[in-house]
Amino acid sequence: MKQSQLFTKTRKEAPADETARNAELLIKGGFIHKEMAGVYSFLPLGLRVIEKLETIIRSEMNAIGGTEMRTSAIQVKDVWEKSNRWDDEVVDVWFKTSLKNGGEVGLSFTNEEAYSNIMKQYIHSYKDLPAYPYDFKTIFRNETRAKSGIMRGREFYWKALYSFSKDDAQHQEFYEKSKQAYKNIFQKAGIGHVTYLTFASGGSFSPFSHEFQTITGAGEDTIYIDESKGIAVNQEVYTDEVLATLGLSKDTLVEHRAVEVGNIFSLGTKFSAPFDLKYTNESGESVLVTMGSYGIGLGRLMGTIVEVLSDDKGIIWPESVAPFRVHLLALGESENVAKEAQATYDMLKDAGIEVLFDDRGGVSAGEKFADADLLGMPYRIVVSERSLKDNGAEVKKRTEERGTNVPFTDLIAHLNPNA
Amino acid sequence: MKQSQLFTKTRKEAPADETARNAELLIKGGFIHKEMAGVYSFLPLGLRVIEKLETIIRSEMNAIGGTEMRTSAIQVKDVWEKSNRWDDEVVDVWFKTSLKNGGEVGLSFTNEEAYSNIMKQYIHSYKDLPAYPYDFKTIFRNETRAKSGIMRGREFYWKALYSFSKDDAQHQEFYEKSKQAYKNIFQKAGIGHVTYLTFASGGSFSPFSHEFQTITGAGEDTIYIDESKGIAVNQEVYTDEVLATLGLSKDTLVEHRAVEVGNIFSLGTKFSAPFDLKYTNESGESVLVTMGSYGIGLGRLMGTIVEVLSDDKGIIWPESVAPFRVHLLALGESENVAKEAQATYDMLKDAGIEVLFDDRGGVSAGEKFADADLLGMPYRIVVSERSLKDNGAEVKKRTEERGTNVPFTDLIAHLNPNA
Repeated sequence: MKQSQLFTKTRKEAPADETARNAELLIKGGFIHKEMAGVYSFLPLGLRVIEKLETIIRSEMNAIGGTEMRTSAIQVKDVWEKSNRWDDEVVDVWFKTSLKNGGEVGLSFTNEEAYSNIMKQYIHSYKDLPAYPYDFKTIFRNETRAKSGIMRGREFYWKALYSFSKDDAQHQEFYEKSKQAYKNIFQKAGIGHVTYLTFASGGSFSPFSHEFQTITGAGEDTIYIDESKGIAVNQEVYTDEVLATLGLSKDTLVEHRAVEVGNIFSLGTKFSAPFDLKYTNESGESVLVTMGSYGIGLGRLMGTIVEVLSDDKGIIWPESVAPFRVHLLALGESENVAKEAQATYDMLKDAGIEVLFDDRGGVSAGEKFADADLLGMPYRIVVSERSLKDNGAEVKKRTEERGTNVPFTDLIAHLNPNA
Repeated sequence: MKQSQLFTKTRKEAPADETARNAELLIKGGFIHKEMAGVYSFLPLGLRVIEKLETIIRSEMNAIGGTEMRTSAIQVKDVWEKSNRWDDEVVDVWFKTSLKNGGEVGLSFTNEEAYSNIMKQYIHSYKDLPAYPYDFKTIFRNETRAKSGIMRGREFYWKALYSFSKDDAQHQEFYEKSKQAYKNIFQKAGIGHVTYLTFASGGSFSPFSHEFQTITGAGEDTIYIDESKGIAVNQEVYTDEVLATLGLSKDTLVEHRAVEVGNIFSLGTKFSAPFDLKYTNESGESVLVTMGSYGIGLGRLMGTIVEVLSDDKGIIWPESVAPFRVHLLALGESENVAKEAQATYDMLKDAGIEVLFDDRGGVSAGEKFADADLLGMPYRIVVSERSLKDNGAEVKKRTEERGTNVPFTDLIAHLNPNA
């Protein structure tokens, strides 16, 4: 994409009320637009990141047997009364609204009830199990403390999968697979090295749930990491008894601030019971379905990546989620530079490389460099009078201090050494 | 995908309150789930149709210079007060809801204000124009007559593009391009032959808007078609004066019921004025931006396809939007059939052909045939003891009465004759 055609521009300042570093950088870069606290629109560059995260997550969910669908945002009172979660006294994050012709509806703050209600139509026999439907969907939560940029939203985009299994054994088999899928997701998203499977509070049906916590000062949670075992314990269950159960010792645990980027939860029959979601087993008996939930907020994940992978100049996107792999800069106003930069743009595109081309006239080299650092594409490629003397371009990774001159004839091989 | 792994099943009956044919067929087929009147969840098969429509529309929008982004559902009072569309007395389809910590917000029923507000940050000079941002997004409308299945929803998924141009000439150039893009979309979606560019009421800034109306008895509009010119006039502007302006005569116009599947609208400065959305032109003067809007509802489009392309047995999906191109049926319980059907499934998948494989045991041939007709994939391929006698499968298009036996060795070439 040519930057002259991208309508967004970088800004020197974020809104004064924006204190979260992730939102500050994302607003300055023109990735997002703040509508109000906890509500953001995704501008073209930001949407590209969300879509790459979505592709990574979808691929891992499909690999463990997930089937994608899309539930409605509007939720019906009758359905939520079954599980006793309609009442605002019970759930304090509902957004409710009224129908013109009478009656109240809610906006999805989570999906257990919607899924249990739908699946009740389709699950009758053991032959119908297991089932792993999932959703990418906009979720609404009436948060009073929407203050962490895109990490705690009143409106956010998430993935939620629900597992429907015959019994605990079938459930556990999938639950273990989902742990690996989640690890793969955070690895692919570039934050695997600072993300830990974390034991957190469970419920009536399991002693623990599992969170994926990423170390960052911007996090709202405190966790205790055992580096050698690669696992952590959330403060909420950090007791002598729990540590003994998990075979962990306070001596080897290190305290960190962290943000929860995903969670998986064994629900047992908590939701199948109120919905009377039963199946007939091989012996002809009627049995409640065993459920689990598996969530990831894509905005929060994007914000976490920015918190973890940025420096004082801007964002440092991992290749897997960068809006573009290459930021191509044409420096100076000479016709020759413009011509060669355009040829380089065409060559990169023809090689299937995603490239943002800063073809803007009347913008200084300093401004273009500063924009490239702020926007944070993995590779910066500069075509200038100087680079043309060597019949090439200067290639610099966002993580490198200095670039290297690469002849045009070697450029694609330099970027795709294994192709 | 194997049908044994698809958790949805066909149903004999749609909900008693569902009178619209599109929703009736889509619910029976397990494409959608009715949450309440005007609110539907998309089950796996239905989501696949929506995604194919989205891909068709995205490709046409990008081809005319569109840039995708995603605005929030939650809308802020201040922004809508500028254009005087916050008040429920002015706009009667708002869903409003309250923040926990005070204040009211609305849910997007359209996008002019959100876009004008965002673009005001980025449009300053003639160099910033034109710009063509667009959105795929869930839209909320507090309809009292949500009764046409997925064709008039309280919640629906749409595409809206807004054009920002320097002047009317630049606007008209894009407006004409958008007409062609819309024609391409409906052609690709399989309803081009019954869809007409229709003159409808304009506004202060243009004598007409343009709708794309598809002939169907399920439509809520009445249009008058001039078949030879390939255009139509909406009843709302069907006057002698308008016909004279358009060079049309009542003698050649034929009345039809139709549904509006898309519309394009010249907005002039209706929204740029209240937002003071101006740019500095080449002469240094400050000028209001000229806008246009371009919408398509994807659920309505899907519903229209079903209304137009179905028979008494079920849906007849066009290849371009079918959830799967091929429905492969294994008939009978013999091991040999199961083995050969599985081999056929693998062969089709390896050739990149999307296939739904009815591998279910204990289901009669009659039921499998009825399901295939209801679900409406373009090709039905049957592997049975009989077809195996000729070492092949029976291939039948959904639109054909009878199938043809095709040897396994010719199957891919039969489906992809030009490959």
